Amino acid sequence: MTIVTLTTDFGVSDGYVGAMKGVILGLAPSATIVDISHDVTRQDVRHGVRVLAASTPFFPSGTIHVAVVDPGVGTSRRGIGLRTSCATFVGPDNGLFTPFLQERVACVALTNPAMHRHPVSNTFHGRDVFAPVAAHLVNGLSLADLGPPVEDPIRLPEPQPERLADGRLRAEVVYVDRFGNLITNLRPIEWGIDDTRGIRVVLRGASLAVQRTYADGAPGQLLALVGSDGCLEIAVREGSAAERLGLGVGARLIVQGV
Amino acid sequence: MTIVTLTTDFGVSDGYVGAMKGVILGLAPSATIVDISHDVTRQDVRHGVRVLAASTPFFPSGTIHVAVVDPGVGTSRRGIGLRTSCATFVGPDNGLFTPFLQERVACVALTNPAMHRHPVSNTFHGRDVFAPVAAHLVNGLSLADLGPPVEDPIRLPEPQPERLADGRLRAEVVYVDRFGNLITNLRPIEWGIDDTRGIRVVLRGASLAVQRTYADGAPGQLLALVGSDGCLEIAVREGSAAERLGLGVGARLIVQGV
Amino acid sequence: MTIVTLTTDFGVSDGYVGAMKGVILGLAPSATIVDISHDVTRQDVRHGVRVLAASTPFFPSGTIHVAVVDPGVGTSRRGIGLRTSCATFVGPDNGLFTPFLQERVACVALTNPAMHRHPVSNTFHGRDVFAPVAAHLVNGLSLADLGPPVEDPIRLPEPQPERLADGRLRAEVVYVDRFGNLITNLRPIEWGIDDTRGIRVVLRGASLAVQRTYADGAPGQLLALVGSDGCLEIAVREGSAAERLGLGVGARLIVQGV
Repeated sequence: MTIVTLTTDFGVSDGYVGAMKGVILGLAPSATIVDISHDVTRQDVRHGVRVLAASTPFFPSGTIHVAVVDPGVGTSRRGIGLRTSCATFVGPDNGLFTPFLQERVACVALTNPAMHRHPVSNTFHGRDVFAPVAAHLVNGLSLADLGPPVEDPIRLPEPQPERLADGRLRAEVVYVDRFGNLITNLRPIEWGIDDTRGIRVVLRGASLAVQRTYADGAPGQLLALVGSDGCLEIAVREGSAAERLGLGVGARLIVQGV
Repeated sequence: MTIVTLTTDFGVSDGYVGAMKGVILGLAPSATIVDISHDVTRQDVRHGVRVLAASTPFFPSGTIHVAVVDPGVGTSRRGIGLRTSCATFVGPDNGLFTPFLQERVACVALTNPAMHRHPVSNTFHGRDVFAPVAAHLVNGLSLADLGPPVEDPIRLPEPQPERLADGRLRAEVVYVDRFGNLITNLRPIEWGIDDTRGIRVVLRGASLAVQRTYADGAPGQLLALVGSDGCLEIAVREGSAAERLGLGVGARLIVQGV
Repeated sequence: MTIVTLTTDFGVSDGYVGAMKGVILGLAPSATIVDISHDVTRQDVRHGVRVLAASTPFFPSGTIHVAVVDPGVGTSRRGIGLRTSCATFVGPDNGLFTPFLQERVACVALTNPAMHRHPVSNTFHGRDVFAPVAAHLVNGLSLADLGPPVEDPIRLPEPQPERLADGRLRAEVVYVDRFGNLITNLRPIEWGIDDTRGIRVVLRGASLAVQRTYADGAPGQLLALVGSDGCLEIAVREGSAAERLGLGVGARLIVQGV
């Protein structure tokens, strides 16, 4: 049994995801298909990155992750197969797999037409390239069968927190989840901060202590906490911090006491 | 093959559901994961109760149902494992499993850390507690392995219809489905009513006969009928009764001729 | 292993889809359930037709497709089981399976009560008729066990492109996908057009060349292309052609140079 996960920006109202599932099961009946998400914001590669980073590390070794957020479909952008020590990723070479590039063991361009479904449409490589490639991997073909090595897969910039001259840290909001939580790029543990009780987050003139969980605030209260991915985030209990503060991706905040 | 169903208020746009699936399959590769819903209204435990009540009774004996609608995550609220004669439920002890408590055979608190994923985050017990617990159950561990018995799991009030002095029944809307149907707590069969043709529903000055199905009304017409869960409901053919009447959960209506 | 796909207009916020899955797995534990879509527009049979046409042809032979977009549930409309050379379809006889009728090998009415779940509600045949019928098919029962033959399953009109007196073609928008792409009924290959570079699409005073893919336009640019289903469509790169043009299903356009 090999697991094939699917992550797309297709939604499920058009049957496109169903077509991909059919192609995979038609070629590899033993595949176990698992939906991660089809609600990635349309053509928002960074959103796709977040969804993959939040979910794929928890799957068993050997899982094949197919991801399609692909504004460049049909152009000269490559398709790639990327193998790390734990998983294989299949999709467009547009930065969607940025968090996994560092641990890569192999990466190939998906140029072998024998691995594709024909005719290959110009607009739907999810069905015609990525799904059949994943199925062939389930059936035991190797990365080398898919096409030649790629040395320079595309990597999106990943903004890092910065230590300011006064010793404080400047972090940046890198994601807003559907609850309106503002998730930053600051992972306290990576800065040697085991105990977050001594630190404070400064933004918009407010100074917030770091709480343990959402329910530590009063309903409607703005609070800071370390989220389930280990990153500092700003939340409003039973509300949306993004709406309350009018902030989004790229907003900066200062962390002191670190 | 053991089925593990998932019901959450996470949506699928953030990868949280994918993380839970990965954890389950990582620990219990033989699990068959079935999505019930990830569209429960955020933090609406009563909505979660409805979704579980409408779906879980139809699954085969031995199914494990993981449900996460969990506004109190990270606080002192307990996690529980609840066994009935047909199924096992895993999730927060906040009333989410109210309809199944009466048939319970066993109930335990999920306090054994050996059954969890570490570190356990304060904000995502779906991934770190409930998913691994479900996987361990798939693998054959018993409820007793999860933690000590719980005698008093939390139960939400379940309003019952009332017989008025004049013999009529007063029912209450307990749920509005996504079609805008107003679903009441009156199950005619439980009041000895086999044939609903003789009864009428009075609300907002209207008196409605009970129809067999939605299509028995003219398009746009308000009608009463017995829904698929056996409860009396108010609907509008090709429309929303909730919008038409401006009514929602808690609204009362009178049933006569019973 | 037999695949059972599900396509409905139920959404997933009410537990109705979960109930269907439970019924299928309760009767046929070996079934592999695959979600195609539960986001068909409510009671929009034509939308259901599109989703099925876009996805079911890609599934392996022997797949059972259960589809429920069923405004006539509980009335005298029949339920049907339809077999083609590659697949079996189960659902209401209301035109939902129009594209597959031509290739039918057998079609029966679902009248045998022994194949249903009892009591059969008047409002939820997805759970009480279609799901158990699909499960019995998984278990090896034949179409003939479900009920008597149907000779005249309902077929929706399928508008065809027309050749005008001046030699140009008149096509019609038959679907708007969730990206706002206007998909027409003109499949160039069926009109002997292998190379679409010579043709132009005229609508709203504009004359559009046919591009290879969405990214061939500038952001915001209106363009024509042949979509993944082989049909001519009108799109806006990173936008919605439906919104831009204020057009929808039924809109006509002229194709010249064919």
